[in-house]
Amino acid sequence: MSRISALGERELIRRVGRWVGKSRSVIRGIGDDCAVLPGPSGKHLLFASDMLIQGVHFTDKIDPAAVGWKALAVNVSDAAAMGGIPLYAVVSLGLPPSTPVAFVENLYRGLRRCAARFGVRIVGGDTDRSPKIVIDVAILGEVEKSRVVYRSGARSGDQLFVTGRLGGSLRSGRHLRFVPRVREARLLGARWRIHAMIDLSDGLAVDLDRICEASGVSARIAAADLPRHGGCSLTQALADGEDFELLIAVPRREAKALAAWGKKNLRCGLTRIGEILPRRAGERVQLMAPSGRRLPLPREGFRHF
Amino acid sequence: MSRISALGERELIRRVGRWVGKSRSVIRGIGDDCAVLPGPSGKHLLFASDMLIQGVHFTDKIDPAAVGWKALAVNVSDAAAMGGIPLYAVVSLGLPPSTPVAFVENLYRGLRRCAARFGVRIVGGDTDRSPKIVIDVAILGEVEKSRVVYRSGARSGDQLFVTGRLGGSLRSGRHLRFVPRVREARLLGARWRIHAMIDLSDGLAVDLDRICEASGVSARIAAADLPRHGGCSLTQALADGEDFELLIAVPRREAKALAAWGKKNLRCGLTRIGEILPRRAGERVQLMAPSGRRLPLPREGFRHF
Repeated sequence: MSRISALGERELIRRVGRWVGKSRSVIRGIGDDCAVLPGPSGKHLLFASDMLIQGVHFTDKIDPAAVGWKALAVNVSDAAAMGGIPLYAVVSLGLPPSTPVAFVENLYRGLRRCAARFGVRIVGGDTDRSPKIVIDVAILGEVEKSRVVYRSGARSGDQLFVTGRLGGSLRSGRHLRFVPRVREARLLGARWRIHAMIDLSDGLAVDLDRICEASGVSARIAAADLPRHGGCSLTQALADGEDFELLIAVPRREAKALAAWGKKNLRCGLTRIGEILPRRAGERVQLMAPSGRRLPLPREGFRHF
Repeated sequence: MSRISALGERELIRRVGRWVGKSRSVIRGIGDDCAVLPGPSGKHLLFASDMLIQGVHFTDKIDPAAVGWKALAVNVSDAAAMGGIPLYAVVSLGLPPSTPVAFVENLYRGLRRCAARFGVRIVGGDTDRSPKIVIDVAILGEVEKSRVVYRSGARSGDQLFVTGRLGGSLRSGRHLRFVPRVREARLLGARWRIHAMIDLSDGLAVDLDRICEASGVSARIAAADLPRHGGCSLTQALADGEDFELLIAVPRREAKALAAWGKKNLRCGLTRIGEILPRRAGERVQLMAPSGRRLPLPREGFRHF
């Protein structure tokens, strides 16, 4: 009997996409950071959800306000990755009956803090008994039709950039207090032509492969160019995951000007890390040493199953 | 230390409403079946979520397709209870790694069957490792501004009607295959003035009390008039919960014509069960015996914590 653990998350999502099928009234369904739906004039709606589970995504010892912040922030990051802004959220909460009321109040303190920072209104949800704490947030956002960005738009020759620095998010606790790159995505989208974008949740190696798969291309990145957090190895920068930085592909002719603009306008930094190449057989993402030699690509990332 | 079990679900939701606060851009936030948000011209958006958890809402032995059906149907029912229609859903799924792929495929079969029946498009979601199976569905729907119905609109003198029959939903397995009353709610809304509406998830006694609390009124129902499923006691009809029938309050002057219309147009049945009274001290819902004597009101319903 085939089990989910043998399938892995990506294959599971592929199958879910097949099981669910396509619909003409849906602009983009399963397979991007958010679903894209018909919206009011000139806009698309963005719709997504992300679940955090006690013992998998956080432990009992963690400040519940940090869990609340993260539960909303991962969804806000999904809206940012489409080029849009988050608007409304509903929160489903599974709680053991023995949960202290103060825990839930603090969880909501974190949710509210994140909501206030990004202009999100928490408008509803569900509460239920559960053996473990489960928090699932669904988000509704919007994006101008002219500014929506998918994973699937990367073309050969595009240059790859990443915001901020990578690696060590779980170990350092950054995964609980990261600031979704909404402002950066909006600034980028207002000024530059972005072909493809994704937020780095499972590690650069995996998430860049997602862009390549969706776009039908391959990519080459330079090991020496990856912006790493202090004390992080190359492997950690590629595979730790939970960075929630933006990975973007832009036309080659804009790359130089974008790099200069980024230096001036994005305090978090914007680093050119490689380029998009034509579709190729074998590994879609190639990691290059300064010597020009190819390096093995660590792929572990966050293991969903 | 105060715990959730001592607080109960209704008080928890009240507190969540206070913690989250209000916002002018939200038409209706926490405290109804769906949040109501500004929509495209002439319409409001409806946004809600509902979570099912293994061991709490279903057991291992249950057909996963039935769980999938129910997970979406409870959300569809929330849209119906606002007078609207469901449009899109995202599905967050927590799964033990040992879950057979066939289980998930069957779960999606049930989701898809419900989606097809009600014209809902499943457009995304999340999959995660979890010690127990968790399925949280968020739904996006719409309703004409002129036809949205809240829990809070009941007025003294309104007559109370309920669709279908009540009681025994869990015991009979009906809770896994119930058909949300979207069609009935739409037919009613097109033809009749509905002051208040709710779907019966926690039992008539509890859910009628919710209408009374939200509307600032009380209510009297006639024990002899409650439409019960075969073999169900009065207590079961009042307190079993998970009926997912509609409870509605309509102006007194329309009640007679509505009853006649219901007989002709609603195959599930539409039964007049009581009336709305002014706000009063003490119990908001009074249950009357044919003798005119007041009966004690069983209130247990589905216990969330």
